[in-house]
Amino acid sequence: MREVAIAGFGKTPFGAFAGQDICSLAVTATRKCMENGHIQPSQVDAFYLGNFAGPSFTGQNHLAPYVAGEAGITGVPCTRFEAACASSGAAFFHAWSAVAAGVYDTVLVTGVEKMTSQTTPKVAEILAGAGDMSGEMLAGATFPALFAMIAHRHMHEFGTTREQMAAVAVKNHANGALNPDAHLRKVITIEQALNGKPVSSPLTVFDCSLVSDGAASVLLMPLDRARNFTDKPIRVRGVAQTSDHVALDKKETITTFPAVRAAAEKAYRMSGVTAADIDFAEVHDCFTIAEIIAIEDLGFVSKGAGGPFSAAGHTALRGSKPVNTSGGLKSKGHPVGATGVAQLCDLVLQMRGEAGARQLERTRLGLAQNLGGSGATCVVTILEAA
Amino acid sequence: MREVAIAGFGKTPFGAFAGQDICSLAVTATRKCMENGHIQPSQVDAFYLGNFAGPSFTGQNHLAPYVAGEAGITGVPCTRFEAACASSGAAFFHAWSAVAAGVYDTVLVTGVEKMTSQTTPKVAEILAGAGDMSGEMLAGATFPALFAMIAHRHMHEFGTTREQMAAVAVKNHANGALNPDAHLRKVITIEQALNGKPVSSPLTVFDCSLVSDGAASVLLMPLDRARNFTDKPIRVRGVAQTSDHVALDKKETITTFPAVRAAAEKAYRMSGVTAADIDFAEVHDCFTIAEIIAIEDLGFVSKGAGGPFSAAGHTALRGSKPVNTSGGLKSKGHPVGATGVAQLCDLVLQMRGEAGARQLERTRLGLAQNLGGSGATCVVTILEAA
Repeated sequence: MREVAIAGFGKTPFGAFAGQDICSLAVTATRKCMENGHIQPSQVDAFYLGNFAGPSFTGQNHLAPYVAGEAGITGVPCTRFEAACASSGAAFFHAWSAVAAGVYDTVLVTGVEKMTSQTTPKVAEILAGAGDMSGEMLAGATFPALFAMIAHRHMHEFGTTREQMAAVAVKNHANGALNPDAHLRKVITIEQALNGKPVSSPLTVFDCSLVSDGAASVLLMPLDRARNFTDKPIRVRGVAQTSDHVALDKKETITTFPAVRAAAEKAYRMSGVTAADIDFAEVHDCFTIAEIIAIEDLGFVSKGAGGPFSAAGHTALRGSKPVNTSGGLKSKGHPVGATGVAQLCDLVLQMRGEAGARQLERTRLGLAQNLGGSGATCVVTILEAA
Repeated sequence: MREVAIAGFGKTPFGAFAGQDICSLAVTATRKCMENGHIQPSQVDAFYLGNFAGPSFTGQNHLAPYVAGEAGITGVPCTRFEAACASSGAAFFHAWSAVAAGVYDTVLVTGVEKMTSQTTPKVAEILAGAGDMSGEMLAGATFPALFAMIAHRHMHEFGTTREQMAAVAVKNHANGALNPDAHLRKVITIEQALNGKPVSSPLTVFDCSLVSDGAASVLLMPLDRARNFTDKPIRVRGVAQTSDHVALDKKETITTFPAVRAAAEKAYRMSGVTAADIDFAEVHDCFTIAEIIAIEDLGFVSKGAGGPFSAAGHTALRGSKPVNTSGGLKSKGHPVGATGVAQLCDLVLQMRGEAGARQLERTRLGLAQNLGGSGATCVVTILEAA
């Protein structure tokens, strides 16, 4: 397999953009990425689009050749990849393997979602499709309800507290306030987080990620080739996608996600690094409890230690293991299909030293963890400044 | 790149199955395929699911790990591929390239769609998503209307007649009547086809493919490995996926599909064979005019000669170039996301000599052409009995 690098990236701000449809968002990010990577549309060998539910949110399906055509790319494989909230992580994984294996030399991976044109109940219904519609969702669950059960169980098993979950929200809001592309740029206090409007006990509105519009794009090339297009190629050291059952009731435990552990293990093995070597990470904080479980399953801390670790400030911008310096899904926003690639863009931004007020000092090894549904899909990627 | 073979296949009948949901259809085909290929779920390296609009038709999204988990497959990449009516063709193309490039040794590709639980207007609305929703569809078009325009233009440019289109329908119905898995097993006359209920002039109901439920699955392995699992491996000689603009008004001509011509050209080049070498084919007859244009764009006949060639019986079961011996989308049925892989299953059935009453004599080289929307995606595959 060849070494693969990210040779360019581009993204839209995340937010609620009434004037932009799903196609224009994706095209904007794709064009920015081509510009950043100094390539022309005619140089693209294949176009990988990550999108969760564009047809349900907007009516428009067949989005890959639609977006590619508008960006000037025709005559090459253009395909949409869907794996719930890990849709663009999955698109990236498949694109990486195709470049690594020598199928293509120049590949664009774009993720997009346009959510804010729907009412909140409709959004909840569409999002529920990432869970088991004939079981848990038919019984009345929603994603906040599923993660509330997960949070309760984690609190029961490990003594995790609402304060610890609130600390994750406070930290991610603080980071997002420094990110000009974030959906919500608002510092909050621990009291505000604890006293937020209840969504599904024990989760308040401050424990839940945002409903956003947005798109993000990365350009993949073999590392050798990437050096001709950028003086700051970012090497893909390891990447893995794994799966598990969709329904919570089919899992043996709900306080750990086997798909995350397996993906992390594979990515660490591929890259020859350990959790301790990772300088910083973007993890899938669809809910605050999800970030706590993520840093446990990724091996940053032992099982059950995620809450105290977060509350002690170790995952903060100036902590020992910064997590979600972008603001995460909580504050940067969570346009579902864009999230996986957006996480990679945020790693690249840090690694290129372009993260502005939230710039870290140590950025050699960055990790992204992109989760689908309540753990049925996970993609873990480890990047290194080349 | 390694030589790749289809080592097993499985499919459900196509039809309207009120008692089966999208997941059970996909799981049935997947299990049949594993049984046919003599593999266990634990041997599967990756699961590729082709599906166009499962979330819109059924509410269930995140279908790849859902179906895989029910079939006993977890812990591996499970991803849904969408490219409109070419969704499972696209899944197959990407799976093939991963096996060819050495990424995986054992891959399942399943295609599925569950359409008949929705009303006809809702089905039309969902299908319209494969076209340009902000342009042609917003202006009131539907897919029958788009292909009616294509038919009118083809009649104008080349003198194609309604009788020639009707001949395609009569032939495909005759073939489908011999296929125990076909949705409609009904022989029709040319008079019936011509006097069918109008859908969008000049197309009658007999010019339009069916709204069906169904699933199909194939097992891919390197050719060497496939020989350990079957004494009848089917070699993938060539395969290509290409793209074009989604909207008809962005195309220079609507009587030929550049994506089909480009995919065919690539697949022929890869396989080292010509159109004349192809013994038989399954082509994407979403409308009768689409079959006529397909045999032209694939080079079976010169441009404009598709109508007379069809009317003369050359594409019939006992003709010189049998096309759609399965009955095609017109009679076998068109569960959108299943169609691409189902075409491959029908080629394999013939090549293994298991096609029963519609068995051909010459089956060395078979071609499948899977079209997305009105030509924005095309996958062409050439198989050879190994």
